[in-house]
Amino acid sequence: MQLIVSDKTQQASFVPPDRLLLGPGPAMVHERVYAAMSRPIIGHLDPAFLDLMDRLQGNLRRTFGTENAMTLPVSGTGSAGMQACFANLLEVGDEVVVGVNGVFGTRMAEVAERLGARVRRVEAEWGEVIPAEALAEALAACDSPRLLAVVHAETSTGAWQPVQGLAQLAHDSGALLMVDAVTSLAGCPLEVDAWDIDACYSGTQKCLGCPPGLSPLTMSERAMQRVADRKSAVSSWYLDLGLIAGYFGSARVYHHTAPISMLYALDEALLLVHEEGLHARWDRHRSNHEALWAGLATLGLEPAASEGHRLWMLNSVLVPDGVDEAGLRRSLLEDHGIEIGPGLGPLAGRVWRIGLMGESSRAANVLRLLGALAQLLGGDAAKARRAAEQSGLQG
Amino acid sequence: MQLIVSDKTQQASFVPPDRLLLGPGPAMVHERVYAAMSRPIIGHLDPAFLDLMDRLQGNLRRTFGTENAMTLPVSGTGSAGMQACFANLLEVGDEVVVGVNGVFGTRMAEVAERLGARVRRVEAEWGEVIPAEALAEALAACDSPRLLAVVHAETSTGAWQPVQGLAQLAHDSGALLMVDAVTSLAGCPLEVDAWDIDACYSGTQKCLGCPPGLSPLTMSERAMQRVADRKSAVSSWYLDLGLIAGYFGSARVYHHTAPISMLYALDEALLLVHEEGLHARWDRHRSNHEALWAGLATLGLEPAASEGHRLWMLNSVLVPDGVDEAGLRRSLLEDHGIEIGPGLGPLAGRVWRIGLMGESSRAANVLRLLGALAQLLGGDAAKARRAAEQSGLQG
Repeated sequence: MQLIVSDKTQQASFVPPDRLLLGPGPAMVHERVYAAMSRPIIGHLDPAFLDLMDRLQGNLRRTFGTENAMTLPVSGTGSAGMQACFANLLEVGDEVVVGVNGVFGTRMAEVAERLGARVRRVEAEWGEVIPAEALAEALAACDSPRLLAVVHAETSTGAWQPVQGLAQLAHDSGALLMVDAVTSLAGCPLEVDAWDIDACYSGTQKCLGCPPGLSPLTMSERAMQRVADRKSAVSSWYLDLGLIAGYFGSARVYHHTAPISMLYALDEALLLVHEEGLHARWDRHRSNHEALWAGLATLGLEPAASEGHRLWMLNSVLVPDGVDEAGLRRSLLEDHGIEIGPGLGPLAGRVWRIGLMGESSRAANVLRLLGALAQLLGGDAAKARRAAEQSGLQG
Repeated sequence: MQLIVSDKTQQASFVPPDRLLLGPGPAMVHERVYAAMSRPIIGHLDPAFLDLMDRLQGNLRRTFGTENAMTLPVSGTGSAGMQACFANLLEVGDEVVVGVNGVFGTRMAEVAERLGARVRRVEAEWGEVIPAEALAEALAACDSPRLLAVVHAETSTGAWQPVQGLAQLAHDSGALLMVDAVTSLAGCPLEVDAWDIDACYSGTQKCLGCPPGLSPLTMSERAMQRVADRKSAVSSWYLDLGLIAGYFGSARVYHHTAPISMLYALDEALLLVHEEGLHARWDRHRSNHEALWAGLATLGLEPAASEGHRLWMLNSVLVPDGVDEAGLRRSLLEDHGIEIGPGLGPLAGRVWRIGLMGESSRAANVLRLLGALAQLLGGDAAKARRAAEQSGLQG
């Protein structure tokens, strides 16, 4: 006789542990976004859904600071946006200049190389930014550069790359400017049109306050002309922006089934962004960053990113001598329910990464983290109190 | 003075209209899946999340009928799975045989061609299946075929492609067998190991009963050996299975941020699949399909797919002479809240596509659709009653 064991007795629905997400992303999500995400799906060609996509694209344009017609969410996580930009803008043999000062610049170079581009890396120490002069030199050394690509907010180090002015450099040499804004969008100033950026992409799980799963992307007319002028077809059918635009444009041609629930979530997250106002949101990220550092300084902790180039939403903290980097993170997670990130690459074991992104950038979260860190770093109650006082946050 | 108008007064949260989704997908979603999807996200490297991924992969293997280590959800919709399979298994110049009898076979051929493969299309009428003999001939005509690719359930026509036996054909000629199971998985028999399929992918929004956004994929060891033996790097960094496996394998190397909420949803959907049991679920799809056709016949409607090869989860219905194809669909949507799909390509204007997938395949839905169709096709109440009776569904 065959014994039938009901699965019900074996596997229970997953209930996530309580976590305060203060790492490099994903960040916390507003309950309104969760509520939107769990509303019943409708068809991706339903007139009501297409109207929603119009609104979502409009709100994305406002968030990017652009009027680019080609502004849409790619159906994949942030790295899919990177992949889509390179795959559409590059052809085999094209010359590309990439700023490399962390994981995501390194990734950009690899993505471009796999597509057959000739990549010229302009490197800087992890934690530093890439000087504009070095990028200009690299462009000048190319025969015919097609693309200049930099990371606005290097999530792996906390370095804030200046972007204004780079478009002029790129365009003077015939190249387009591409900017990775995965971590910066909606957390600090980013003005795609004013800064004349040609291609820019982001992720939903950082300062937009949405779960991961989509990559907002925008391309200038100049960039779309480059795509239209390609000699070869885009090697990825899935990420071919010409085909994707057929769905997001007025023709509404089916390309692939849109990730409907994620789009509900992003729509609601964008409502929250614009109810708060972009400038107010940037200010909130700045002030919580300043409060965090005032408190961290009291605990004797120091930043890893170079002065004047420290991101508001991603704070790299040097691990003090004698402190167990991974052990502290584990205690934070297990005993305090707080996630922060480790260092990567040359910064592995040397820094912690504290994210204050989107919904995570709240005064209460800064205070809770400071209290937990004070305790884990062996401070007494007075020290924890002083750190909280220095942050200026408690009322 | 600048007038500040709060966005709150301008844009309200999106509330989707009530829809019964009986089109080609997305299909209905169980409330437990929505509940899972809206639970708070945790980090993609959180130990609790990694445990969940282990369970999810195990349940995916059971669903595919495989023990393949390489079994995971790709972070994109169903077409991303197709893209991933071809991108990893093909190199420039490789020979591929593709069965083309609808939209998705056509898409397969295009995806492979864009990757630089030499594609040999084996065509059949839309609604027919591809004879194994024709595939064998095409393989024999190749110098060194690398891949045989077919669509198990052609969503654009409702044709059910026989797959058993094709592995032998492929392997005898040195090719791997790749199967598109976007619409078939969990709705009708599919046995990856027993049928010796090398690469198979699906989508979450059909018979798995989950929103769209992920593409479950599995690859045999033979296929992964092919990937390991590549001379060139996979052109898409985002879809490089070697890199993705680093996260889903025991090493847990960060590749890209996982779409956490979608993975919660898929995990819960797979629990529902296995609580019901795969065989019971297949039976449910079959019996509701039979009931639907008994009712449709009473209304004088006929199937478009060839006899003996009609899918249980996707029913193509010939539009009777004199009936406004698009008008009826519009009335169904607007007056009855029911979505069904139009024909595509050569079947545009000639068929309706009725999906009974996953949660959509329920007796109550069949009866509601039959009632609405009877009314819209001008039948009297007696006819509607007879259609319902013939379906054998009401109690």
